[in-house]
Amino acid sequence: MRTYLDCYPCFLRQALDAARFAGASGEQQADVLQDTLELLQSIDPSTTPPEIGNQIHRKVRETVVSSDPYNDVKRASTEEALRLRPWMRAAIAGSQDPLETAVRLAIAGNIIDYGHSAHYDLEATIADATQQPFAVNDMDALRSALTLAQDNGDGVLYIADNAGETVFDRAFVEILDLDVTYAVKEAPVLNDATLDDAQQAGLDACCTLVSTGTDTMGTILSLTSAAFQRRFSAAKVIIAKGQANYETLSPGDERIFFLLKAKCPVIARDLGVETGGLIVKQGGTV
Amino acid sequence: MRTYLDCYPCFLRQALDAARFAGASGEQQADVLQDTLELLQSIDPSTTPPEIGNQIHRKVRETVVSSDPYNDVKRASTEEALRLRPWMRAAIAGSQDPLETAVRLAIAGNIIDYGHSAHYDLEATIADATQQPFAVNDMDALRSALTLAQDNGDGVLYIADNAGETVFDRAFVEILDLDVTYAVKEAPVLNDATLDDAQQAGLDACCTLVSTGTDTMGTILSLTSAAFQRRFSAAKVIIAKGQANYETLSPGDERIFFLLKAKCPVIARDLGVETGGLIVKQGGTV
Repeated sequence: MRTYLDCYPCFLRQALDAARFAGASGEQQADVLQDTLELLQSIDPSTTPPEIGNQIHRKVRETVVSSDPYNDVKRASTEEALRLRPWMRAAIAGSQDPLETAVRLAIAGNIIDYGHSAHYDLEATIADATQQPFAVNDMDALRSALTLAQDNGDGVLYIADNAGETVFDRAFVEILDLDVTYAVKEAPVLNDATLDDAQQAGLDACCTLVSTGTDTMGTILSLTSAAFQRRFSAAKVIIAKGQANYETLSPGDERIFFLLKAKCPVIARDLGVETGGLIVKQGGTV
Repeated sequence: MRTYLDCYPCFLRQALDAARFAGASGEQQADVLQDTLELLQSIDPSTTPPEIGNQIHRKVRETVVSSDPYNDVKRASTEEALRLRPWMRAAIAGSQDPLETAVRLAIAGNIIDYGHSAHYDLEATIADATQQPFAVNDMDALRSALTLAQDNGDGVLYIADNAGETVFDRAFVEILDLDVTYAVKEAPVLNDATLDDAQQAGLDACCTLVSTGTDTMGTILSLTSAAFQRRFSAAKVIIAKGQANYETLSPGDERIFFLLKAKCPVIARDLGVETGGLIVKQGGTV
């Protein structure tokens, strides 16, 4: 997804939020803001929003000298989600359509996103996600793709998004009778999940954990490691979680299923849905 | 009030909103955005937000070549408010404290503000404004100042804000037994009231209409005409309506009473109140 003009004000807000989150002084906040203004003057219109976000977060880390300002909230998010795990598993197992319920919960977990807002209501989001209709509903295609993968003995490449959301992903993966490779960030950026976060969430018990080889938000294929690129090319089914993966991988191709909550109004408009909509979207379509 | 770091994202949003409101093409919107980024890189930290807003709106007018994009909505806002006039007058006349009710309604009218948002709910705001407690309550000081002015035969300088809001100001002015000079903008900027707008609202029937001599939002004294500056210096009581007048005239001195609704979170924080609060604040205090 390209960067829209409406993203510009949001980048400045994100820069300030991130600087403050990292404990920046007033002077450091002003520095980050000035650097962001400069950056925004020179971006190529085809750049995706997460690429700009990456530069902003790198600048914050350089200015504030904090290697991972989100470490504490990531651990707390994961712990909070783990406490919901017994309920999650029971909800899926007791559902008439466990796969759809697992997908809905995996999307609900996507609300744990410190890029969008430091404030979210996990329980309300879960309640909504289990009830509201999908805004884009390619569930049938996802179901067929997973069944076919099972028949053919193919695995699934599952591209993670945020720490905490990982626990919801785990509940989804556990009901799949498939080899799942779960890809996380090589190093911290925002509250995106890293190997440590995935392990804390217990994903190592049900998946092969790999890294994309980068510390950039979303999946900017050209920046990922050669090993990840090979996995991506070879994969028969790819699940891409969250906004940043949609922004960087869309439109993609039919192997990809984007699962996300359209929290940002610009992404919602790009998808042709209302803000807050639940999205299960197969790639390759416009 | 100085410009806060949180104002920067909002300036970009205002620039986009204003460009679109003026009917700018995508390319023109991008131009306005780039110019705003450049402008924001070079502002003096002591500049008030409306001074930056003025430059943005001037740029929009230059880029889009529309002398007054807000003309139609200003006329419609005034007509909408005029339809409420019989109700307004009855509400004030039937009130136990007509002065306070008139002040509350004058503040409610301040929601008609296309700088803050092109969407507002006038009726809901009126209902709130007649009931909620003041967030800053210098009503006693205002009451005393108006009584003293009446005893001494002094007039009041009333600095207007937006078109449509003017009709609410008129209902307030009409219950004052005082000579009121009502100051509007010399030329259009945003949906701020000009002489035409004040006449459409019927202010000429109860006030002496004057202009500040500028087309800048708020009241940047150094930019106003010599005639306005003399009036301002000589005035014993000054009523300054709306956010931009607060931003440009605060802290001011004890002759000034700021009447506004704190719609913007940064202004609300500057005032030490919750967003949406009703403000009657005497100048000269911090």
